Amino acid sequence: MTARPNIAAMPQPTGKRAGRRPGENRTRAAILAAARTQFAGAGYDAASVRAIARAADVDPALVLHYFGSKAGLFTEALAFPFEADEAVARILDGPRVQLGRRLALFFLSIWDDPARREPMMAMLRAATTSTDAAALLREGLAGRVLRPVGQQLGRPDAQLRMSLCAAQLVGLGITRYIVFLEPLASLEPDAVADLVAPTLQRYMTGKL
Amino acid sequence: MTARPNIAAMPQPTGKRAGRRPGENRTRAAILAAARTQFAGAGYDAASVRAIARAADVDPALVLHYFGSKAGLFTEALAFPFEADEAVARILDGPRVQLGRRLALFFLSIWDDPARREPMMAMLRAATTSTDAAALLREGLAGRVLRPVGQQLGRPDAQLRMSLCAAQLVGLGITRYIVFLEPLASLEPDAVADLVAPTLQRYMTGKL
Repeated sequence: MTARPNIAAMPQPTGKRAGRRPGENRTRAAILAAARTQFAGAGYDAASVRAIARAADVDPALVLHYFGSKAGLFTEALAFPFEADEAVARILDGPRVQLGRRLALFFLSIWDDPARREPMMAMLRAATTSTDAAALLREGLAGRVLRPVGQQLGRPDAQLRMSLCAAQLVGLGITRYIVFLEPLASLEPDAVADLVAPTLQRYMTGKL
Repeated sequence: MTARPNIAAMPQPTGKRAGRRPGENRTRAAILAAARTQFAGAGYDAASVRAIARAADVDPALVLHYFGSKAGLFTEALAFPFEADEAVARILDGPRVQLGRRLALFFLSIWDDPARREPMMAMLRAATTSTDAAALLREGLAGRVLRPVGQQLGRPDAQLRMSLCAAQLVGLGITRYIVFLEPLASLEPDAVADLVAPTLQRYMTGKL
């Protein structure tokens, strides 16, 4: 069994900040894209701020200026491409019998948006090559999305239920958007949501 | 949308052959392990037989002697760690109402075996970084496992049904064995099979 590092000590993603100079967002995006490639390919330990800066064509000092440290860059590069609080609110808001459908539609809306698909893919890619990235994904997914939704289910086995939902959704992301397994890859998001909603609904509120 | 290469022209994995000299299996295993790392990290195009040979501490000529070509090495390194025909027979053999449970148990038996878990992880890892590897996984999964099982379902939408099963199982593999999402990661295989069997059974034989 692979080691499971505790990432509680790592800085949390800070999200978008206001008041950036023109061009700064583009430079930050280039650094984050280079970081995703390096962390996924080489893993956290082997990736270096210097190599990431070189790939993004900037000075290493600028990387540290923007992100503070390699750990800060890592958490920001592999942050969810959505606000967790908003996600939780959108999933919970509505009839309880449609929880599964809303969860599916929210997830599909992220993956179907090309700008947010790439960070999602980078995260999964990094998780398969780096135990640090896997830990970051686990803690982020469990702590910021699954647990808050699970708390509203009012069931003692909510954590198990939400981990089953995650297994269905992560697999849907991989098979539809990375492996392009047909016909799942070509269906409209609404049709896919209809197919997996009963699964998610059973995991969340049904008999296990 | 990423390109979807056709890998029909690539050589098929040859599987185990009899009559190898002592030490050959160990050398082949070292080359295959190095190849998995290189293909997953660098992608198919950037990976080189020379670099793989260096990582495995053998002569590049030996790699070509054993595997014929870079394409041959690729298909062998990323082959399923099980015989597809046997897998299909094991899944189909038994009461139809337990198809989902047998599919879950077969899949869990592969991932729970450390010797076979590593090739499964390598395959997924490579699929997230290389469109060639994703195509290989797609064609292998669809052609050698999902289609033969689907044909026995006797339903016109069998391909859709089996792709939904794949989405559930791939996600289970990632969340349980790579992301270590709890409590899913610590449950006994039998308990996990009980939880996901109704999902797979509905996908295979139920109302969609």
